[in-house]
Amino acid sequence: MAASDGPAPAAVVDLLGMVAYGELTAFDRMAADARLAPDLRRRATLCEMAAVEIANYRRLTDRLLAVGADPEAAMAPYVDALQAYHDSTEPRDWLEALTKAYVGDGVADDFFREMAALVDEPDRQLVLDVVHDSRYDEFAAAEIRAAIEADPKVANRLSMWARRLVGEALSQATRVAGDRVALTVMIAESAGDQAALQSLFKRMMIEHGARMSHAGLNN
Amino acid sequence: MAASDGPAPAAVVDLLGMVAYGELTAFDRMAADARLAPDLRRRATLCEMAAVEIANYRRLTDRLLAVGADPEAAMAPYVDALQAYHDSTEPRDWLEALTKAYVGDGVADDFFREMAALVDEPDRQLVLDVVHDSRYDEFAAAEIRAAIEADPKVANRLSMWARRLVGEALSQATRVAGDRVALTVMIAESAGDQAALQSLFKRMMIEHGARMSHAGLNN
Repeated sequence: MAASDGPAPAAVVDLLGMVAYGELTAFDRMAADARLAPDLRRRATLCEMAAVEIANYRRLTDRLLAVGADPEAAMAPYVDALQAYHDSTEPRDWLEALTKAYVGDGVADDFFREMAALVDEPDRQLVLDVVHDSRYDEFAAAEIRAAIEADPKVANRLSMWARRLVGEALSQATRVAGDRVALTVMIAESAGDQAALQSLFKRMMIEHGARMSHAGLNN
Repeated sequence: MAASDGPAPAAVVDLLGMVAYGELTAFDRMAADARLAPDLRRRATLCEMAAVEIANYRRLTDRLLAVGADPEAAMAPYVDALQAYHDSTEPRDWLEALTKAYVGDGVADDFFREMAALVDEPDRQLVLDVVHDSRYDEFAAAEIRAAIEADPKVANRLSMWARRLVGEALSQATRVAGDRVALTVMIAESAGDQAALQSLFKRMMIEHGARMSHAGLNN
């Protein structure tokens, strides 16, 4: 556990709580999606990836405790929004599950990286540490590409699925933003003006497009 | 990964495959049961315990590969029996989930320890390493005791549930034993005679009774 560093700004607690709850639900979702795997080897791979999320979760809640915050309270504002997102985007098969993890976690990680740049150390490095490593992305992208190669019609179905995922995620993000004043103010202040905010979204959309192409999907 | 050590006896492959598949399903079940937790702290505790299982799973499949066995083939004989066990013992709440993990994994671990004594190193130590550590048992037993203290009627309900779990587990174990000739022969030969086999079961029943008492349950 990190040493106590005194209270953290509200926006940092907001951010750490958001990332922590994201890790907990990512564990839960990957563990459930592992059941959709076509064989035991791939099932175990997804379970191992889930295990990484829960280790990250512990680092984040340890940090919240160190800055004098209650982890449960810090995570509470995100429970409903993430639940609503997952309820509305239940994968029906292995490829939808992989695409959801690849696209959804990719967009979330981009957002977390942008937010990390706005906070001080050691929280900046902590957030950067726990965003997903590329090993997972590579596994998911390779599985999706192989499925498209075997049946090109899959590309269209999964591309539509990915667009729905992004739409649902944005809808829930907007809902949370209206509620988390400290975090929203931090983003608005750091962006400085409307143009800077637009360029943040533009960067995220470019990253998202690159990920889609990498997996053989159409944006 | 362990170095290649040449082919292992069929009974060792049977045993490692059984323990490995047990770990994979334990991960899956704990991850699902975590959703039943009454708060985020306890939910995360169960998720972290699940993560330990999947690390053990990897050690076992690495060892199977090192002795020239196919992990999927080694696990295959246990898939139906474990699925049938879990389908027939779906926990309805957090306490049933904890009791199932505590009682079911406890009996399975005792059996794995008995089997470990029958095989050579390094497989003996590997199996002993991956049986559950007491940290988990203590968490589960403390939760069950606290629930009984809050409402003594809980003891009766969970004791009946535990007896059903053991009954279902024995029924599936008998089914697998009839199928896994090498493992069954190893047990029968090592036991030497009917009396030795009976004493193995007696030891397991004594351990089980001690665990039940420790959690405040009636055998």
